[in-house]
Amino acid sequence: MITRSLCLVLGLTATSLSADPLPSWNDTEAKARIIDFVTDVTDPDSEMFVVQADRIAVFDNDGTLWAEQPVYFQLIYGIDVVARKGAEDPAFLTSDALRAAAAGDMKALMATGQEGLIEVLDASHAGMSVDAFQANVLEWLDTARHPKTGMRYDEMLYQPMLELLRYLRDEGFETYIVSGGGVHFMRAFAENAYNIPPEQVIGSTMNSSYQIVEGVPTVVKDAGFSFIDDKEGKPIAIDSKIGKRPIFAGGNSDGDFQMLEWTTAGDGPRLGLIVHHTDAAREFAYDRDSHIGKLVRGLDEGPERGWLIVDIAKDWEAVWPSE
Amino acid sequence: MITRSLCLVLGLTATSLSADPLPSWNDTEAKARIIDFVTDVTDPDSEMFVVQADRIAVFDNDGTLWAEQPVYFQLIYGIDVVARKGAEDPAFLTSDALRAAAAGDMKALMATGQEGLIEVLDASHAGMSVDAFQANVLEWLDTARHPKTGMRYDEMLYQPMLELLRYLRDEGFETYIVSGGGVHFMRAFAENAYNIPPEQVIGSTMNSSYQIVEGVPTVVKDAGFSFIDDKEGKPIAIDSKIGKRPIFAGGNSDGDFQMLEWTTAGDGPRLGLIVHHTDAAREFAYDRDSHIGKLVRGLDEGPERGWLIVDIAKDWEAVWPSE
Repeated sequence: MITRSLCLVLGLTATSLSADPLPSWNDTEAKARIIDFVTDVTDPDSEMFVVQADRIAVFDNDGTLWAEQPVYFQLIYGIDVVARKGAEDPAFLTSDALRAAAAGDMKALMATGQEGLIEVLDASHAGMSVDAFQANVLEWLDTARHPKTGMRYDEMLYQPMLELLRYLRDEGFETYIVSGGGVHFMRAFAENAYNIPPEQVIGSTMNSSYQIVEGVPTVVKDAGFSFIDDKEGKPIAIDSKIGKRPIFAGGNSDGDFQMLEWTTAGDGPRLGLIVHHTDAAREFAYDRDSHIGKLVRGLDEGPERGWLIVDIAKDWEAVWPSE
Repeated sequence: MITRSLCLVLGLTATSLSADPLPSWNDTEAKARIIDFVTDVTDPDSEMFVVQADRIAVFDNDGTLWAEQPVYFQLIYGIDVVARKGAEDPAFLTSDALRAAAAGDMKALMATGQEGLIEVLDASHAGMSVDAFQANVLEWLDTARHPKTGMRYDEMLYQPMLELLRYLRDEGFETYIVSGGGVHFMRAFAENAYNIPPEQVIGSTMNSSYQIVEGVPTVVKDAGFSFIDDKEGKPIAIDSKIGKRPIFAGGNSDGDFQMLEWTTAGDGPRLGLIVHHTDAAREFAYDRDSHIGKLVRGLDEGPERGWLIVDIAKDWEAVWPSE
C-alpha cells in the first residue's frame, strides 16, 4: 500500500495528497511516523480512527517547543529581575543565592541547591498581581537576548514543532502545554508563540491569593510552590485539569517520562515523541549528562516502548523560525 | 427602543426575533437582563461587544446547576459508601464520624466537624484509581434516590439553568463549572447532564498519585485535600486553570461571592447572577440560616453591585427537567 508518507519520501505527488504539513522536517522515518499516526486517527474508515473530542495532544515546553540552554529561560528571567532589583537596592540581596544571582554567578547559585533556586523565584515572582507579573515578563522578553544566539528568547522556538502543533490542530486536535515552567510565565507568550490559549497552558504554580488591593479585586502571586508539574506530576496535572488521557505526548527529558508512559499506556492508538538534542552546530547537544533537560530513561526505554525519538540533527531541516 | 426582551414580555413576535432561548424562565426582569446582556456582548455593532474568545461563563454546581439539599449530593455519596463498606465489614468504621455516617445519623456526623467530614470523604474516595472511582459514582447514580423527591440525583438539575448554559454556548460562550465539589465526582456526570466536558469542569481536588499498579500506569486518588475550590479559592482556581477572567458568573451562595466579585470587577460588560432558593413548594427554600448554601452577603450586597438575584419562585416556570 502506498502510504502518504511514502509518497512524500519518494518525492511523488498526486492530486489526492495534501501539501506537506511538516515542511521543516526532513523526509525521514520520524516525519513518516507522525504523518501516518495523524492520518490513521483522523480517517473514519481506519480501525485506528479516534473521534475528534478525544484528540488531545500534550507537549512539554522547555526543550520541546522552545530552547532551554544554558538554563531554563524562566530562571534567566528570575536572575535578571534579582540583578536589577539588587542594583536598585543592594539591601534586597539577603542571601547567598540572591547575591549569586545578582552577580551572574551560575556556579555559586547552583551550589545553593533547590532552596536557593526557590529564593530566586520567590524574589522575582512573588508579591505582585498576576497582571503585573505578566506585564513584567513581556517587558523582559522585549529587551532580553540569549547569550549565545543573540535572539529574543521567544524567538528561540522550534520551527518543526510549531508546524507539528499547527498540523495537529488542523486535524482536529486540541494542543496543550504541560510543562514544569510557571503557568503565568508561559501564558505571557504562549498564545503569540504557539497559538495555545491560556486555558490550554498547564504548568507549575506558585501560591496565589485573592486580595482586595486598593479596592480592586486581584489575584496576587505569593511565595512558595503550590504544584510542581514535573515527572509524576504531569499525569496528575493532566488528569486534574483536562480529565482525559491524551493520545499524543511530546517531551524531551526524563521529566516527561511519566507523561509519555501514561499517555501511551492508554487503549487505542497513542504516540509518544521525544525530542533528542543532538545538534551542537545549529542548537545545543545534550542528553545523559546535562543538568538541564537530562535524558536517560527516555533514550534507554523509549524505543522498546514504541516511542518516536526525534534526532534534531537528522530529522529537522530548520531549527529556528526563519527571519 | 424596543428591545428583544421587551417584545418577549409583551408577547410580540417579529420575524427578526429568534425563538425564546429560555423557555422555562418566566417573562420577568431576570430573563430580560440575561437576554439583553447576551445580545449586547454578541452584537458586533454594540459598544458592549465582546470577542468570542473572551466569552467565558463560569457556574457553581451545587445549588446553581443541580440541587444541594438536604446536603451536598457528593456527601450523600460518601455516606452511602461508608454505610455499605461498614455493613460488609464493621471493622471499617474506625471513628465516630464513620460510625455516624454508617448509621445515617447526620446530626452526629455534623458534630464531628470538618475533621469528621474529611474522614468520610477519605474513606469513600481514596485508595482507588480515578477510573474506578468514577465507575463507582456512576453505579451509585443509577441506584440512589433522593429522600424527598425520589428522583435520581442527576435528574435534580435545574431546567432553567440547562437552558441558560445552552443559550450561552449557542452564542459563542465557553461554559465552565467552578465548584467546591470534587472534580472527579462531577466529571462522572457533567458531560451528560450539562454538556460541559471534563476539561471545563473545575473543582476541589484530593491528593492524587501516579503509580504503576500491576504494571499499569495509573492515576490514583489518595486521602487528604489538595485544593478546596470555594470562596477566595474560586478566583484563584479560575486564574490558574483558565487564565482569563470570565464575563459571566453564576452562583447561589456566599461560597460564590468572590467569584462574582472578581468577575464583575473586570473592565467591560460583566454579569453576576445569584440563584436565590425561595421556592419551598417546588424545590427548597433556604438562604441566610442554612448550613448548606448559606447566602447572606450575596443578598445584602449583590443588588447594589448590580448582580442579578434570580428568585426561583418568581422567575422559573419549571424547576426540574420535564419527564
